[in-house]
Amino acid sequence: MTGAIDLNSDLGEGFGVWRMGDDAALLGIVTSANVACGFHAGDPTIMSAVTSTAADRGVAVGAQVSYRDLAGFGRRRIEMDPGELTDEVIYQIGALDGFCHVAGQSVRYVKPHGALYNTCVDDEVQAAAVVRAVALYDDSLPVLGLPGSALLRHAGRAGLPCVAEGFVDRAYTPDGRLVPRSDPGALVTDVDEVVQRAVRLAQDGEVVAVDGTVLAMKVESLCVHGDTPGAVSLARQVRAALEHAGAVVQPFVR
Amino acid sequence: MTGAIDLNSDLGEGFGVWRMGDDAALLGIVTSANVACGFHAGDPTIMSAVTSTAADRGVAVGAQVSYRDLAGFGRRRIEMDPGELTDEVIYQIGALDGFCHVAGQSVRYVKPHGALYNTCVDDEVQAAAVVRAVALYDDSLPVLGLPGSALLRHAGRAGLPCVAEGFVDRAYTPDGRLVPRSDPGALVTDVDEVVQRAVRLAQDGEVVAVDGTVLAMKVESLCVHGDTPGAVSLARQVRAALEHAGAVVQPFVR
Amino acid sequence: MTGAIDLNSDLGEGFGVWRMGDDAALLGIVTSANVACGFHAGDPTIMSAVTSTAADRGVAVGAQVSYRDLAGFGRRRIEMDPGELTDEVIYQIGALDGFCHVAGQSVRYVKPHGALYNTCVDDEVQAAAVVRAVALYDDSLPVLGLPGSALLRHAGRAGLPCVAEGFVDRAYTPDGRLVPRSDPGALVTDVDEVVQRAVRLAQDGEVVAVDGTVLAMKVESLCVHGDTPGAVSLARQVRAALEHAGAVVQPFVR
Amino acid sequence: MTGAIDLNSDLGEGFGVWRMGDDAALLGIVTSANVACGFHAGDPTIMSAVTSTAADRGVAVGAQVSYRDLAGFGRRRIEMDPGELTDEVIYQIGALDGFCHVAGQSVRYVKPHGALYNTCVDDEVQAAAVVRAVALYDDSLPVLGLPGSALLRHAGRAGLPCVAEGFVDRAYTPDGRLVPRSDPGALVTDVDEVVQRAVRLAQDGEVVAVDGTVLAMKVESLCVHGDTPGAVSLARQVRAALEHAGAVVQPFVR
Repeated sequence: MTGAIDLNSDLGEGFGVWRMGDDAALLGIVTSANVACGFHAGDPTIMSAVTSTAADRGVAVGAQVSYRDLAGFGRRRIEMDPGELTDEVIYQIGALDGFCHVAGQSVRYVKPHGALYNTCVDDEVQAAAVVRAVALYDDSLPVLGLPGSALLRHAGRAGLPCVAEGFVDRAYTPDGRLVPRSDPGALVTDVDEVVQRAVRLAQDGEVVAVDGTVLAMKVESLCVHGDTPGAVSLARQVRAALEHAGAVVQPFVR
Repeated sequence: MTGAIDLNSDLGEGFGVWRMGDDAALLGIVTSANVACGFHAGDPTIMSAVTSTAADRGVAVGAQVSYRDLAGFGRRRIEMDPGELTDEVIYQIGALDGFCHVAGQSVRYVKPHGALYNTCVDDEVQAAAVVRAVALYDDSLPVLGLPGSALLRHAGRAGLPCVAEGFVDRAYTPDGRLVPRSDPGALVTDVDEVVQRAVRLAQDGEVVAVDGTVLAMKVESLCVHGDTPGAVSLARQVRAALEHAGAVVQPFVR
Repeated sequence: MTGAIDLNSDLGEGFGVWRMGDDAALLGIVTSANVACGFHAGDPTIMSAVTSTAADRGVAVGAQVSYRDLAGFGRRRIEMDPGELTDEVIYQIGALDGFCHVAGQSVRYVKPHGALYNTCVDDEVQAAAVVRAVALYDDSLPVLGLPGSALLRHAGRAGLPCVAEGFVDRAYTPDGRLVPRSDPGALVTDVDEVVQRAVRLAQDGEVVAVDGTVLAMKVESLCVHGDTPGAVSLARQVRAALEHAGAVVQPFVR
Repeated sequence: MTGAIDLNSDLGEGFGVWRMGDDAALLGIVTSANVACGFHAGDPTIMSAVTSTAADRGVAVGAQVSYRDLAGFGRRRIEMDPGELTDEVIYQIGALDGFCHVAGQSVRYVKPHGALYNTCVDDEVQAAAVVRAVALYDDSLPVLGLPGSALLRHAGRAGLPCVAEGFVDRAYTPDGRLVPRSDPGALVTDVDEVVQRAVRLAQDGEVVAVDGTVLAMKVESLCVHGDTPGAVSLARQVRAALEHAGAVVQPFVR
C-alpha cells in the first residue's frame, strides 16, 4: 500500500466536570479531530483545549455537529424544521471556528454526530439541511460521511468536497449501513479483527458485512472511536498497522 | 451639532417560540445591533434572521456576550473562573460571526450583556477575562461599554478600540454608574426627558445624575432599549431629535 | 344540555423573562390547567405562581409533560428510549406536584404536550412509556388525551382513569386526528365557528372534520388555547356559550 | 463510642452518558444519599436508579439541591433573586420526591450542593431562601449543613430539624469554615488521617483546623466524597473504623 489514509476520531466530548475519552492521547495518534461543538457534548473550555492541542500537533479540526441534545448525547433523532437545523449547524461551525481562529487555524471539515449522522444517511430533507449550512458557511469545506449516504450525495450536488469514511470497529449491514448500536454485534471488539479491517479498508477499499458479504468501500478516512476502554491502545495499533502496510497516515485536508 | 453618533440596541433576544421586542422595526432605526448569542437569549434561527436583516440595512452587528443563563436572561452575576469566562465569550463571538459570515459581514464589536456588563464595570478579573477573549479572537475588534469601566480600561491596555456609550433611558448615580434595575427610578420613562438626554449626551457629552449632578460623559454611541412597550416609537423619536439637532446618525464602526 | 363539561388550557408556558398567554385571565375561565413543567416551557417561579392561583380559584392542575426541548417548545418529535421517557415524565410530574403540595393541592391529571401528545396518538411504545410513568407515580391519576389514541388505550389497560378531550379551535381529519399545525386550515379561527363547535362537542359529542364528515366524539373536556391573540376573549365566549346551553362547566376531576 | 453516626455522600452526579463516582458501591456503604436533582448534575434516569437502589438498601435519600448550572457543576455562586431560589429548590425537591414516591419512599432531608452550600454558610438572604423552600414543602424535613452556618440558623428559626455534618476529607479554617477547593490543602488525602478525623469527629465532636486549632464540632453525620479515585475504598475504611470504635452507623432520619 502506498496511498494516503486519514484517521479521524470524535474528540472533546466531555462537558463541564465530566470527561470522556483521552483527548490528549488521541491527538497524538489521529490526523483529524471531529470536535464536539457544545450541542451534544463539548463546552467552550474543552473546545479551546482540543483545538489548541490539535493545532500544535498538526491535527486537522472538523466540526462534529449535532442535534441540540446534551441529555441524550445527540443519539436521539429529532424531527425538526430543516431551516432550523441549517441554522443550528451554522452556529456550531462558527463557534468552533472561533477557537480554531484563536489557535491560528480554521475548521477544515464538517461531520455530523450520532443520530444526525445516521439520519443523514437516508433522510433527504435533513441531509440537505446540513449540506446547506456547510455551503452557506464556506462552499469549499469538505463533508465527511458514510459512502452512499444522502449526506454525501447532497454535498456532491452542492459542489462541496466529499470525503468517505469507514468505521474500523463498527459492523456493517449488507447494504453498507452501520448496524445500529442497540443491536448485538454492532461493535467489532476483537483487536486483531479491527486492525485487519482497518488495513483492508485502507488498502483494498473493502469491508466484510455482518452476513459475510464483501462490500466495496473506497474511503479516504478511517474512524476510530475514542470513548471506549482501550480506545487509545486500539487507535495506536490501527495506526501502526496502517503504517506497517505502507500507508501514509495524514489528514485528508492538506 | 455636526458630529456623528451611533445608536445601539439589544436585538435578537427571543428564544424559540418566545419573542422579545420588534427586531425588524428597530433594525430600521438603530445603526448598531447588539445581537444575543444564545447564552442569555437568542437562538440560531433568530441570529440568522437578525444578522441577515442587519446586513441588508447597513446596521453593524456586535456580539452581545453574556453569562450562560437562559433562565435568568443573563441578569444574574455568576462567580466563574476567568479562563472559562474567556472561553465562553470566544464561543459566543464565533457563533455569531458564523451568521455574519453567511450574510457577507463579520462581527464588528463586542458588548457584554446584563449582569456581565455590570460586573465588568468594577470587577477587574472578569473585565480582563472578557477583554482577553476579544483580543484573542481579533485584536482590532472594538469593545463597547460604560465610560470609566474596568472593561474599557482593560480593553485600552490590550490595545483594543474602546467605544463609550450612554444610556438614554437609564438613570445614573453621581459616580457615573447605572442605577440598578431593581431600584425605583432606574428607568427614565418620560419620553421628552429621554429625548432631551439623548441630544445632550450626543451634543454636549453630559448627563444629569439622579442627584442632579451634571456628569461629563463623552460617548460615541447611545443605547436605546428594545424590549419595552413603546421602545420602537421612543427609538424613532430619539433618532429624529438627534438628526434634527444636526447629528449624523451612523455606525461607530465604518 | 344538562351535563358537565370541563374546559382545559395550556398554562404557565413562559420561561424566564419570556411570557406566553395571559395565565391569570385564563385561570378565571378554565376549570383545568395543563401546567408546563419546565421541559418545553415553564420555570419554577412560573409554576409556583400558576399553581398558587389555580388553587385559589378551584382550578384543577394537571401536569403538561413534554420532551426535553425548550428550544423547540416541545414541538419536535424525539426518538428516545422508552425507559428514559418514563423517567422524564415522572420527573416532571414530581416537580409540579411539589408546587401543588405547597399550594395545598396535588397534581390531578397528566396530559402530554405538543409533539409528545401527537406521538402518543399512534406510537405504541412512547404512549406506553408515558402511561407507565403515570401508573408508577399514582395509579389513580387520570390521563387526558385524544379519543381513540394509543395513549388512552394504554392508560385504560393500565387501569388509569381516561379522559377524552376535544379541541374547539383545531381542525380534525376524517379519522379523528388533529390536522398538523404546519398544514393550512389546522386552526379554526372564526369565533362563531369555534363557539358552535364547542357547544356541539359538549352537547352532542360530535365534531365536523375538514372534509365535512361528522365525527362522533364523546369528550369530558374541551381544550381552549391560551397562546394566541384573542385567546382570553375566545375562551370566555366558549364558556359563556356552554353555560348558556345549560352545561355545568366544572373540572372533570372532583 | 456507643453513639450513632450517619454517613452521607453525594450520589447520582452523572448526566446523560457521563458518569461520576460509583453510586452502586457507595450505596452499600453510606446511610444517607444526597441525590443530585438535575440542576448541577443528575438526570431522571440516574435519579430513578439511585432512589430505587437506595430504597432497597435502606439508605435515606436527601435532595442535594443546587443552582441551575450543569456547565459549572453547581460550583459557581449565582446572585439570584431569593424568591426564584426558593422556587428552584421546591422544584428540585419535588422532582426527586417523585422518584422516591415510585420507590415507596420519600425525600428525607435537604442539603445544598457546591456553591449554594458555601453561599448558605454566610449569606443570610440565600440561606433564608433555601430554608423557606424546605419549610413550604414540608416543615418536618431536616436540613443537613455546616455547624454554625446561616443555613442551620435559619432552619432552626423556621422550626425545621437541623442536622450538623462534618467532612472527613476537607480541611477546616480556624473558624470552622471549609478551606476553599481552589486553595492548596483543601483536601485531606492521607487515608489514615481521614479515618482518624472521622472517628474523632464522631467520638469526640472535634476536628483539627489547618492551623492546628482544635475545633469543637458536634455532628450527627459525616460526609464522605464519592467522586474521587479511591472514594469507595476510603468510605469503606471510614465506616469500618467507626464501627470498630463502637459507633452505630445508621441514617440520622429514622
